[in-house]
Amino acid sequence: MQFTAQDIGFMLNGTVEGDPHATVNHLAKIEEAFAGSLSFLANPKYEPYLYTTDASIVIINDDQVLTEPVKTTLIRVENAYTAFSVLLEKYNTIKLNKTGVEQPSFVHPSAQVGENCYIGAFAYIGPGVKIGNNSKIYPNAYIADNVTIGSQVTLFPGVKVYFDCVIGNNVIIHSGAIIGSDGFGFAPNADGTYKKISQIGNVIIEDDVEIGSNTTIDRATMGSTIIHKGVKLDNLIQVAHNVEIGANTVIAAQVGISGSTKIGESCVIGGQVGMAGHVSVARGSQIMAKSGINRNIVEENKKWGGMPFFTSYLDNMRTLVAVSHLPELEKKVKELEKVIAELNKKNDNSKKSPSLGEI
Amino acid sequence: MQFTAQDIGFMLNGTVEGDPHATVNHLAKIEEAFAGSLSFLANPKYEPYLYTTDASIVIINDDQVLTEPVKTTLIRVENAYTAFSVLLEKYNTIKLNKTGVEQPSFVHPSAQVGENCYIGAFAYIGPGVKIGNNSKIYPNAYIADNVTIGSQVTLFPGVKVYFDCVIGNNVIIHSGAIIGSDGFGFAPNADGTYKKISQIGNVIIEDDVEIGSNTTIDRATMGSTIIHKGVKLDNLIQVAHNVEIGANTVIAAQVGISGSTKIGESCVIGGQVGMAGHVSVARGSQIMAKSGINRNIVEENKKWGGMPFFTSYLDNMRTLVAVSHLPELEKKVKELEKVIAELNKKNDNSKKSPSLGEI
Amino acid sequence: MQFTAQDIGFMLNGTVEGDPHATVNHLAKIEEAFAGSLSFLANPKYEPYLYTTDASIVIINDDQVLTEPVKTTLIRVENAYTAFSVLLEKYNTIKLNKTGVEQPSFVHPSAQVGENCYIGAFAYIGPGVKIGNNSKIYPNAYIADNVTIGSQVTLFPGVKVYFDCVIGNNVIIHSGAIIGSDGFGFAPNADGTYKKISQIGNVIIEDDVEIGSNTTIDRATMGSTIIHKGVKLDNLIQVAHNVEIGANTVIAAQVGISGSTKIGESCVIGGQVGMAGHVSVARGSQIMAKSGINRNIVEENKKWGGMPFFTSYLDNMRTLVAVSHLPELEKKVKELEKVIAELNKKNDNSKKSPSLGEI
Repeated sequence: MQFTAQDIGFMLNGTVEGDPHATVNHLAKIEEAFAGSLSFLANPKYEPYLYTTDASIVIINDDQVLTEPVKTTLIRVENAYTAFSVLLEKYNTIKLNKTGVEQPSFVHPSAQVGENCYIGAFAYIGPGVKIGNNSKIYPNAYIADNVTIGSQVTLFPGVKVYFDCVIGNNVIIHSGAIIGSDGFGFAPNADGTYKKISQIGNVIIEDDVEIGSNTTIDRATMGSTIIHKGVKLDNLIQVAHNVEIGANTVIAAQVGISGSTKIGESCVIGGQVGMAGHVSVARGSQIMAKSGINRNIVEENKKWGGMPFFTSYLDNMRTLVAVSHLPELEKKVKELEKVIAELNKKNDNSKKSPSLGEI
Repeated sequence: MQFTAQDIGFMLNGTVEGDPHATVNHLAKIEEAFAGSLSFLANPKYEPYLYTTDASIVIINDDQVLTEPVKTTLIRVENAYTAFSVLLEKYNTIKLNKTGVEQPSFVHPSAQVGENCYIGAFAYIGPGVKIGNNSKIYPNAYIADNVTIGSQVTLFPGVKVYFDCVIGNNVIIHSGAIIGSDGFGFAPNADGTYKKISQIGNVIIEDDVEIGSNTTIDRATMGSTIIHKGVKLDNLIQVAHNVEIGANTVIAAQVGISGSTKIGESCVIGGQVGMAGHVSVARGSQIMAKSGINRNIVEENKKWGGMPFFTSYLDNMRTLVAVSHLPELEKKVKELEKVIAELNKKNDNSKKSPSLGEI
Repeated sequence: MQFTAQDIGFMLNGTVEGDPHATVNHLAKIEEAFAGSLSFLANPKYEPYLYTTDASIVIINDDQVLTEPVKTTLIRVENAYTAFSVLLEKYNTIKLNKTGVEQPSFVHPSAQVGENCYIGAFAYIGPGVKIGNNSKIYPNAYIADNVTIGSQVTLFPGVKVYFDCVIGNNVIIHSGAIIGSDGFGFAPNADGTYKKISQIGNVIIEDDVEIGSNTTIDRATMGSTIIHKGVKLDNLIQVAHNVEIGANTVIAAQVGISGSTKIGESCVIGGQVGMAGHVSVARGSQIMAKSGINRNIVEENKKWGGMPFFTSYLDNMRTLVAVSHLPELEKKVKELEKVIAELNKKNDNSKKSPSLGEI
């Protein structure tokens, strides 16, 4: 894909300053740009790069004043950041603009696939599956029996969805994510072995959710594991059976959530956090990375941290600072002990013969 | 699948009270049930739901006394919980009852596949592979050269098994799990680069093991990484080369086990635990979530926790409580210092002129 | 594969002592060997096994003195360890010696595949992909549009590489690893929902890198996530967008690296470490397992540890020892308080009536 300054000025309804025939084939940050790059300047901090950049074209704000000569072609728009974001998105849409059914793929005759979908080679669409319009099922993805998938959904290569799961609209699931594998449920037998508890529930993923690579979401024992509208999950996250994650909650990589835990809306969970089973986390909670949560969080919109005596973010920071002072504190206590022993000795002496010993 | 109260009463050898033609197509907990649901009541705590549930049919114990009118159809059996578990399992068996070879799939001419197996589309069965009867190899699974797989085994979609590995009977491996990838072994060269140490061992998985989604089990450098009979591994667990996990040990999600570590029988390991290499953990050990194990555990059947000065569960809880009191303790020590300084001053004064200064 | 002592002696330029027709089909450690095993003795600690092993052939050093009779056939070479390593490598090369294109596979007409490559069944090679010579793309691997892959590269089954990524020569990527999925970037909207920030950069993996099973490496927002020459990554590691990992750095399993963090050359990072975003780690740093890094490490070639008041390895060990003494310390401080209260009382008494109270 190659575009001229003229093309882009037209797309963005902007004004070209410089060579209207300058061509670009690549988007880049202004500080990393080279010949053929299209870049932008929005943050005044980066203005010096405007005069030195090798970018062929730079998008700038209408009111940007030039204090030095520039060699790049400029496109002036109302809001350079927004304009560039629009281009980014267009670029991505073009990159991922696959349609049609590649062969060989497996689409069961009883499956219903909407209009304008992409079914990649080696994708598997099982019996009774329903897929809405404009969805993309990339190669090596697997969709088991009776799964329902909405419109504008992207399942990247190798995503696996077990039977009976339900996926809403505008959902993006990245490669290697597993949706609906069995919950980890076993009942101990008298002889020390374990009996598997059948996991017959499902996973429901609502609209506008994004799920990262190799994240695993287990089906409910009965009922549903539910990922509500607008949730964003990073890579390598474990979501156990019967968990529920509230709308617009964002969870960083490698977090583990144990069975039946409920997370409220609009939470932000740091990386590598672990949550015990059957706890609930109030809406708007923010959890420090690497924390361990083993009790309910009832107060809304607070910061928390620590492991495992989970507490407020501030109390936890105080504790952690105190931990880092600990060797010092130990030393101090030893010194105090000496001083006190000394004092005690003197006092004992003074008890026995205060006027003699001292005078 | 749709069943009447009469059908289910017959299956469970129970007595129908109410409409024998009531139909269900769905299993649900009594508190979440709706029209068309089959549910059960075993725990007396849930009895109030019996009188308000929308379930079409509820299985109850023979001796359940009704204290209010019910609108649902009842089926009385000796043990409602057991009866429902039987139904759960039947339901699951029907759901997963795939057989036959889907096309296109790849089965090497030298592979031996038992009777009544399922080979999904895009599954790959390499040269020299042997698979027992009634096993299910789902789509996009890969089984490399000379792997041996027993009977009644399920490899869910996308499982990868590297060459020479051995899998017993009644094993379930969930999607995305990787069995037999290379152990992480490198020898440093003089110039700072690393030389790969060939990993030519294998992985042995004994009977009745279940392995979660996206869990990785590396092959031994030489010899075998061994997962003994009845072990249950959750999702996203890392098992390094030459590890051995004892029979009936249960390990929660995101645990990491370093090379050559040996875990005894009947252990229970909490989520996100990390284990150093070359340690051994006694049988019956229970490890608190998020702990770090860096020494041998010799005593059997104890609880442990902490990181990295791994200790008994109780000692660790004491330490963690103390940690949470730490900012307070620091304050206290500062006050003690002041008091002692004060005392010292007075004492010094009293040393110099005890009777003068004070009287 | 079956070899005689004579064959192996010839391969290694060694001298056979015993039956030149002894045959082996298997490599094993001397303490685990059985009939048909080829083993070696390099570490004097293991010499006793030489006289009891069931190995059919054992490779020993030229100068190894025998103090008891041996029943196995011996092959004397200059350096037994090196000789055995050579055999290990040859064995592995033969095991993994696949070439040719299996069917069905998907190779886009615009893709360029070098000489002597292996393309497994159900592998997907997208439009514009370039692959060098002698590379192996195993079954169910997916290579998206315009990816470039060097020579002597192995992508094990199920590896997924998103569009525009670049992979150098002699790279090994294990099953289930995901290269180039979207970075975790979202901008909050006023209504509490999030807007996806398009991720249009790529991932660059330089020569001689090895990447473990189910590890995920996200593409840059713009620019590149870069894994430099000779890096070794274990399983289940998360590498976020715009991260850069320096040459010959080794990272253990389940480490998480947040966005834009830069790790220097020749670092060693322990398992389950977490790194915040936008930090930099100096070359030669060694990080203790399970640590949390939330600030820059500037000094080179030091050991570090702790969470989250990340400090030098030694200081951290001191802190952790102090933490384990904490309940004891708390008790001690309580006793000190009592003693001081006592002293204070006496002092107060002595203040009021020193000569009366005591004499």
